[in-house]
Amino acid sequence: MSRDSFFRPHVDRMAGYVPGEQPRDTGVLKLNTNENPYPPSPRAFEAIAATLDDRLRRYPDPMGTAFRQAAARRHGVDPEMILAGNGSDDLLTIITRAFVGPGDLLVYPSPSYILYRTLAELQDARVAEVPFGSDWSLDPASFALPGTKLAFVANPNSPSGTTLTPEQVARLAERLDCPLVVDEAYADFASSDCVSLVASHPNVIVTRTFSKGYSLAGLRLGYLIARPELIAGLVKVKDSYNCDSLSLAGALAALEDRDYLAQTRGKILATRRRLTEAVRAFGYQVPESQANFVWCTGGPPAAEVYEALKAQKILVRLMRYPGHADGLRITVGTDAEIDRLLEALGPIVAASKFS
Amino acid sequence: MSRDSFFRPHVDRMAGYVPGEQPRDTGVLKLNTNENPYPPSPRAFEAIAATLDDRLRRYPDPMGTAFRQAAARRHGVDPEMILAGNGSDDLLTIITRAFVGPGDLLVYPSPSYILYRTLAELQDARVAEVPFGSDWSLDPASFALPGTKLAFVANPNSPSGTTLTPEQVARLAERLDCPLVVDEAYADFASSDCVSLVASHPNVIVTRTFSKGYSLAGLRLGYLIARPELIAGLVKVKDSYNCDSLSLAGALAALEDRDYLAQTRGKILATRRRLTEAVRAFGYQVPESQANFVWCTGGPPAAEVYEALKAQKILVRLMRYPGHADGLRITVGTDAEIDRLLEALGPIVAASKFS
Repeated sequence: MSRDSFFRPHVDRMAGYVPGEQPRDTGVLKLNTNENPYPPSPRAFEAIAATLDDRLRRYPDPMGTAFRQAAARRHGVDPEMILAGNGSDDLLTIITRAFVGPGDLLVYPSPSYILYRTLAELQDARVAEVPFGSDWSLDPASFALPGTKLAFVANPNSPSGTTLTPEQVARLAERLDCPLVVDEAYADFASSDCVSLVASHPNVIVTRTFSKGYSLAGLRLGYLIARPELIAGLVKVKDSYNCDSLSLAGALAALEDRDYLAQTRGKILATRRRLTEAVRAFGYQVPESQANFVWCTGGPPAAEVYEALKAQKILVRLMRYPGHADGLRITVGTDAEIDRLLEALGPIVAASKFS
Repeated sequence: MSRDSFFRPHVDRMAGYVPGEQPRDTGVLKLNTNENPYPPSPRAFEAIAATLDDRLRRYPDPMGTAFRQAAARRHGVDPEMILAGNGSDDLLTIITRAFVGPGDLLVYPSPSYILYRTLAELQDARVAEVPFGSDWSLDPASFALPGTKLAFVANPNSPSGTTLTPEQVARLAERLDCPLVVDEAYADFASSDCVSLVASHPNVIVTRTFSKGYSLAGLRLGYLIARPELIAGLVKVKDSYNCDSLSLAGALAALEDRDYLAQTRGKILATRRRLTEAVRAFGYQVPESQANFVWCTGGPPAAEVYEALKAQKILVRLMRYPGHADGLRITVGTDAEIDRLLEALGPIVAASKFS
């Protein structure tokens, strides 16, 4: 063998995506990866336990038919418009591979979910990061760059927690001659969503996850909603058995427990309100969040506060975007968890002010 | 929008991989996708049940550290040499994306696992299918085509069930200036494997699955064994959280129940012997199988027999490879299942002979 590396050159050049820290230390208060602080629906546990039988021996249903039907009922669409994935990351990967090749242009707003760049890099594609306005708006004319092969919009957006209205997203879709992925990972905490656009706009793909609203990040299940002709093409790209039998069963049960979702959502929204006001009182600028986290900039130095919290076993996410000041993205925990955060934050902020 | 399709042209052209039939009808005797006829280790069920707690709420360990350590112990390698995947299909996909781009050459023997072609097509790559010899040998000089970026060898091979010896695989690896993936999905049923080649040959990657020997096809878990520098590059290509918490826990428990594996393996090998002799007596040519299936050619017409068995709710796999006669790949079931198959096969073969 003569070469230093067998990898494709653009893979060698990549740094790779770094997920939020997942400490195994159970004493850590994790407010860094937007996990739900409440347990999943008890029905999800029951459904998984009830699947611990001969079904593990067999391959899962390649299309997850029962889950697909339940998701279709939930959204009032045809089952042919649903595709399940191994977390919404799997679906974002499938979509990128399907539409974007080497040198192709992938567009998304900035700052947003940093995985979009990694997905483009893995395809050796070009990216255009279109800046949000200072009010987190997005100009359709600037966003719809000529030759774009795929566009992503996280809605609600991370790290800001802000949303574009369905009407604003429709304007983006109409300007684009390519698929527009509306990444609704956090839509369960928002007051609106874009699922209805799939019917009116053939290039809209909406992705959902069970990791946030349904508190099932450990299961890895997501789905997307799109026109049947898009689903048919994406099926060719996915691994045949991309979703396992237990995850499909657990997610289906969680999806159907609407009351439980409404309960935990209500608690998170109330705590989000309280957290927003508290961190604003500490001097941070915080946009109104439609997600299960708040985005804090412009106050006490983010990196310093992040480290000081970490020293007290409280993990928040320090986010750095080129051309922007550092910010802290803080997950909405339970009231008790947020009390612990705020109690720690008080002295840290005071010390920082006088240092 | 002006185009008929948003998909990349090579995706539009693809037919897509068609997995073996997965009928939901529980009355069907499934001998078509090489599932294990015995249930998984009871310890796998226990481990999954014991994970139905707060861990579902959280993201899984991105690298599956505990599983990785167990797999490393099992094979006597460093944990840095193990990478877990969402089934070995996920790993084969990651590998192909890492090493093969548009126009690049991917090589594998023929007839073999038909997914390899699909993986290449998804990357818009070229393929060379190098024919096995009539004794299922593979000539290293013919296999090592100039400019090859990636090579796959299923060992044991599907559909033949035959193996190359580790020495023969080593000769292939030495000729290649690219990674050689030894797909050991069926190695749990064989008398040798190629894991030791990873130490001696830096371009060898061995893949394993829990779907066959461990009877956990429904969980979707596989792993690969390779040099740490290869693992480090492949990690950049995989989805961050590609393995869910339940699958990692179940697979780890199954891996450590060595006695259970030995028991079920022993039963399958005994039944394989009996099945091989019986189908040979019906006129088929059957290579000695090192896997949990037997490959039947040259006897009563395969397509006709396949349909006649299906009419009796017995599913085997009808395999068609260009340039080869049709064949039947029959999974080794329990003794009772194989009795049912052979009882059905007798009259079908007799009718076919006299038709």
